[in-house]
Amino acid sequence: MRIAVDAMGGDFAPGVVIEAVRDALNQMPDVEIVLVGHLEKLSYYLEKLGLIGHPRIRLVHAETVVEMGEPSTASIRAKRDSSITVCADLVKAGEADAIVSAGHTGAAVAATKVRVRTIPEIERPALATLMPSVQPCGKTVLVDVGANVECSPLNLVQFAVMGELYCQCQLGIEKPRVGLLSVGGEEHKGTDLTRCAFEVLSKMPINFVGNVEGYEIFCGGCDVIVCNGFVGNVVLKASEGLARATMFWLKEAVKKNVLRYTGAMLIKEAFVELKAHGDSDEYGGAPLVGLKSPCIIGHGASSPKAVMNAIRVSDKFLKFGFNNRLASRIRECGISSVDGKYLPMLENYGINAKKG
Amino acid sequence: MRIAVDAMGGDFAPGVVIEAVRDALNQMPDVEIVLVGHLEKLSYYLEKLGLIGHPRIRLVHAETVVEMGEPSTASIRAKRDSSITVCADLVKAGEADAIVSAGHTGAAVAATKVRVRTIPEIERPALATLMPSVQPCGKTVLVDVGANVECSPLNLVQFAVMGELYCQCQLGIEKPRVGLLSVGGEEHKGTDLTRCAFEVLSKMPINFVGNVEGYEIFCGGCDVIVCNGFVGNVVLKASEGLARATMFWLKEAVKKNVLRYTGAMLIKEAFVELKAHGDSDEYGGAPLVGLKSPCIIGHGASSPKAVMNAIRVSDKFLKFGFNNRLASRIRECGISSVDGKYLPMLENYGINAKKG
Repeated sequence: MRIAVDAMGGDFAPGVVIEAVRDALNQMPDVEIVLVGHLEKLSYYLEKLGLIGHPRIRLVHAETVVEMGEPSTASIRAKRDSSITVCADLVKAGEADAIVSAGHTGAAVAATKVRVRTIPEIERPALATLMPSVQPCGKTVLVDVGANVECSPLNLVQFAVMGELYCQCQLGIEKPRVGLLSVGGEEHKGTDLTRCAFEVLSKMPINFVGNVEGYEIFCGGCDVIVCNGFVGNVVLKASEGLARATMFWLKEAVKKNVLRYTGAMLIKEAFVELKAHGDSDEYGGAPLVGLKSPCIIGHGASSPKAVMNAIRVSDKFLKFGFNNRLASRIRECGISSVDGKYLPMLENYGINAKKG
Repeated sequence: MRIAVDAMGGDFAPGVVIEAVRDALNQMPDVEIVLVGHLEKLSYYLEKLGLIGHPRIRLVHAETVVEMGEPSTASIRAKRDSSITVCADLVKAGEADAIVSAGHTGAAVAATKVRVRTIPEIERPALATLMPSVQPCGKTVLVDVGANVECSPLNLVQFAVMGELYCQCQLGIEKPRVGLLSVGGEEHKGTDLTRCAFEVLSKMPINFVGNVEGYEIFCGGCDVIVCNGFVGNVVLKASEGLARATMFWLKEAVKKNVLRYTGAMLIKEAFVELKAHGDSDEYGGAPLVGLKSPCIIGHGASSPKAVMNAIRVSDKFLKFGFNNRLASRIRECGISSVDGKYLPMLENYGINAKKG
């Protein structure tokens, strides 16, 4: 397994990324790393961590990096020599099997969409993420969280299958329950987009539980929740904001007197456990699902542990045979972009969703 | 001020509603209540609370009520004799000045949209709500949270002014900062809908701060956040879900050993304060803004305090002269549905948003 790692992506790159690479090489004996970045900038860290000349690291130079404030299209236009674009090119050329990046999410989506491309059965890749949940398994898959701000019904139904497989691969749930995010549980609730997707989801051989509301992301009875990328992105960031605000309020309340402060000291470990529910380091980031080669996108502020686990997840995807399974499951569900039997139904809503 | 109160709306109606009416009459000497519901079902509570023959209560019979599972359109089709529809008819006939209901939100939106109608300057009413925030004032106005699942750019820019006025009326902030909910801070981020709204919002004489991301609802630097009702509804319910999940995790963590349990006892008041941030009882519910007469919609599980405060808020709206101010502000901003100068720009995006 050869993983192309974007050494320049992330707030603490390249140091954090190279540290993660060292740990990944130690823990995963069959993984090879293609480390992509500005070689001069990498050398200090490679030397420091004793990785110069490591037999399972191949170094590839990339002149630039897409910075956080830049438009997503920089990776396919102004900065074709950026680290993420070089990663995509390596995968395209068959020189790597997967990509890991903690850099600019939009740039990674753009570069991989254009250069790596989706498997033929899938129209558009989607970002899947794990949200914390009170369910026994502790997580709900939310897909898409930002790769597609505008979606067709075909996209949504394909996201359902992508989410199902991600759930199987990552959480080991055999028959995940799939819900469609909407403004009410009843079938008629929602928009034209969700109603059309609902109709087709009900016919597909998946464990579809119908419309679900926002609270069910955290307190619900399903394993996969499908939504368009605009809604998913807003919800993901809103919940990060609420979690941060909750910790802020808790600290404010605790600081009010000595008694409370003492109580807080006794309960400290409980707060640590509370925070851990929102910790995504264990899963390394959000996979961009549907591409010909897996691409795992980490949080900008990823820790070495998070980046290492992103490498682990990309390896897991490859070993799971994710893409072959995805292609056959999409065909089985009749929603392949090539010739799915439900395409006419999905296109009835005025959106030509069939792949060009 | 004559407030039409839907006595049958809400999970604990009519008992809770009538209790709220009693408290409102005690606290607000210039408020008259038009209590709408099944008279037989009301009489027990009226008698119990000593309200029979109260000089400031007028009783109006309504045969049915729109139940929670029913479609929103029940209030304008199958159940035209429902309590919320009768409330709307009373306002339409000039027999009441505002409506308060803790019943079926969709039914209230449908009934008031069709019977009360919006002021001519506004195309569609919107539900505004107060989200808890770490900001000094402790709240952010989010609008729309569910009255319109599909929106035009005109709707969004009108929501901005509605939110601005609600913020002034309810939070007393003179020049509220207004943000547009999107997937990134940069101007180009978002959908065609948000980009069009962004362009016009930038030209309007409001304190527009640009695109804001999901986390800024709770941790941000603006007072009003505008979004379409689908996104707003999902975010509102998701944050309720996360708050509930957080309390669940906290309890689980605390129960693990005696030391933690002791700590939790000492810190109990802090938890109560934490929970209070999400408490909406003080504001009574979400106003449906833009109608010819104010309509305050409470949570289904509203307490007497919440319903009483909804009555207080509707009274406040009337005294603030909300609708006159709204009409003139909308015209001032050039976005009146009648003849706003920005209508052509707003319609350029292929959506005919001009009123009737």
